Amino acid sequence: MTLPDALVRDADSKILFYILDGLGGTTDPERGLTELQAAAAPVIDELARRSETGLMVPVLPGITPGSGPAHFALFGYDPVESNIGRGVLEAAGIGFPLQDGDIAIRVNFATVDEEGKVVDRRAGRIPTEECERLCDILAAVVNLGDVEVFIRPVKEHRAAIVLRSRGEELADGVTDTDPQQVGVPPLELVAEHPGAEPVAAMLRRLLEQAREPLAAAGEPAYYPLLRGIARHRVYPSMQERYGLRSLAVATYPMYKGISRLLGMDVHEGAKDLGDQLAAVASEWDSYDFFFVHYKATDARGEDGDFEAKVAAIEEADAALPGFLDLGPDVVVVTADHSTPALMKAHSGHSVPVLLSSPLARHSGVEHFDELSCARYGTLGTFPARQLMGLVLMHAGRLQKFGA
Amino acid sequence: MTLPDALVRDADSKILFYILDGLGGTTDPERGLTELQAAAAPVIDELARRSETGLMVPVLPGITPGSGPAHFALFGYDPVESNIGRGVLEAAGIGFPLQDGDIAIRVNFATVDEEGKVVDRRAGRIPTEECERLCDILAAVVNLGDVEVFIRPVKEHRAAIVLRSRGEELADGVTDTDPQQVGVPPLELVAEHPGAEPVAAMLRRLLEQAREPLAAAGEPAYYPLLRGIARHRVYPSMQERYGLRSLAVATYPMYKGISRLLGMDVHEGAKDLGDQLAAVASEWDSYDFFFVHYKATDARGEDGDFEAKVAAIEEADAALPGFLDLGPDVVVVTADHSTPALMKAHSGHSVPVLLSSPLARHSGVEHFDELSCARYGTLGTFPARQLMGLVLMHAGRLQKFGA
Repeated sequence: MTLPDALVRDADSKILFYILDGLGGTTDPERGLTELQAAAAPVIDELARRSETGLMVPVLPGITPGSGPAHFALFGYDPVESNIGRGVLEAAGIGFPLQDGDIAIRVNFATVDEEGKVVDRRAGRIPTEECERLCDILAAVVNLGDVEVFIRPVKEHRAAIVLRSRGEELADGVTDTDPQQVGVPPLELVAEHPGAEPVAAMLRRLLEQAREPLAAAGEPAYYPLLRGIARHRVYPSMQERYGLRSLAVATYPMYKGISRLLGMDVHEGAKDLGDQLAAVASEWDSYDFFFVHYKATDARGEDGDFEAKVAAIEEADAALPGFLDLGPDVVVVTADHSTPALMKAHSGHSVPVLLSSPLARHSGVEHFDELSCARYGTLGTFPARQLMGLVLMHAGRLQKFGA
Repeated sequence: MTLPDALVRDADSKILFYILDGLGGTTDPERGLTELQAAAAPVIDELARRSETGLMVPVLPGITPGSGPAHFALFGYDPVESNIGRGVLEAAGIGFPLQDGDIAIRVNFATVDEEGKVVDRRAGRIPTEECERLCDILAAVVNLGDVEVFIRPVKEHRAAIVLRSRGEELADGVTDTDPQQVGVPPLELVAEHPGAEPVAAMLRRLLEQAREPLAAAGEPAYYPLLRGIARHRVYPSMQERYGLRSLAVATYPMYKGISRLLGMDVHEGAKDLGDQLAAVASEWDSYDFFFVHYKATDARGEDGDFEAKVAAIEEADAALPGFLDLGPDVVVVTADHSTPALMKAHSGHSVPVLLSSPLARHSGVEHFDELSCARYGTLGTFPARQLMGLVLMHAGRLQKFGA
């Protein structure tokens, strides 16, 4: 028996996940504050007072998650067991209809000199149209016999390749060819275990077929660098697990991709929180669960810009009333992981979480931040993957366990 | 995939574990304070203000650990799965080079009367030289055929026996012979499962061979009591798991033994914190991880002497600046377990922990103790074996998990 899945029952309640990517921070030594402590976020603060609050550990204490495992955990999926490769994320991000067992690969079109040494790992960030042209050239020349090959442009120099076998299962475990530096040739494809040798051999053949046509297509010559070679597996959907008709409203492809992997419907075309609110409002009656993803908190954290991250938090706060006015029964405001401006990167710190519902114990925090969630949190510190159980209970969507 | 091990990367950072054995206490009913609450520890308090703080559960809530599992957990080893027997701890403590599969046994030389009943379980705490003489006598008469037998003095009446098979593997699961009281004969050796019968039979033969020569060696007659009969297995070292060149600087053999079992180098000769600081300072460039073990907090707790334990905490606090002056990147101040003076014994209470690093969320606790860590702890309450993940992240020694 898997909990909470086995206890799920239907209800009319609406759940809103307001995910501020990378929201968690750490103390800036000069200010003596985290970004959240420094922010003026009156809407979130007022909500937090009447909410359950706490701290969540995305994977394990100290483990810095990528976006994939961090979001999987938020939605109640084991982030370690269901860790997905970069290639799968990339292909899912552009809406490619992955099937169980597909091998997905992230491609960077680079440029190389006459000796085959990398000149520019991003080929000068070519326009997406040029990327589309290179994908067409590849598609015309690559042939791996019985194994189907799909080649899709993503954005600028980035593309995705998917291998699909109708016969023998394909295994991943093949190393990247991106040397992560210029002036050296791409790395060899290495099978990390004997079962991965067939895929390594296919990709060597693909690179051999690609070399001359791509070299002829540009000056200096184009050449594809392969990364994140990963096997796709199908996960049980949010609908199957929780009975939730789920809609993702994100502005970045990666988060749409993650949502698709979990069977959510994905809204297309939203460019900012205003668009996202409009999308949620117009779909309000058609879904039970809304995943609103806000990217700027993470992006400004990655920039190392403390003040800009504070401003991003304040922007998200100012946009929240529109969503609250729709009348969700359960509102969660939290992050997938921390991105402290001090570190200019994701980190392994815990993330503050707020869960609002008519059933909430009012935590009484005056200001929603990492420290007040530690001090006054009614939920304590808990693994992010346990959040969905709390959410479903507060949404009236779980039966009692046991007699 | 094992986390955090699979994510370890190299860095130049230095990590200091300042372990005050048995530091955790409980509320003394008359004083209304724990030992830590009563202590004046300004250095630790000042550090705690700018540190992450929390409470750690050594094994599971309520479980009182011995020194072995408590330290194993601190260093990120599952304290249940890797629970080691007393015999192994004893042999490792004297630096005996244990091999995988050895059976190690703790020996007390006792005295017995003519009927073989125990007169003194410690033979009047004979000098170590007398113990050495008895070990020589034993070594001369014991012969278990193909199985090698090593007999080593430890201290006073204590010795260690190690059995090593070159052929069939030896299994543990044989009961102690120490009756834990006088006026009765030693207990029979009992195999707890059929696989342990060969070792039980060997030890019966050993005792038979030992009886007369030991009886002739003293008045009343000496006789060995066997305890903690345990099979040794080799654990992956701290270097293998975390890439940490690790030095243990302890004053007591048992902690050196535990450190050796985890592949740490062990400094010899330190008698107090002054010696320990000198050792760490002189080895600063040669290691990444320093385990400084302070015994007095546990010893005074075991004595049931509240004031003396408070004084021991204050002594450790006064010695801390010397270590901080070396400039460690990450400092952990915590305990392996609690030893409340009220209980005169180890206990199953959680232990307060402080983790200082440039990336720390400043917990803002005014006084480092069990209660303030519970109230203001940024780390919440977590299993001790998860500490190493946090430490490695704060030391910049972990890659991101997943895409």
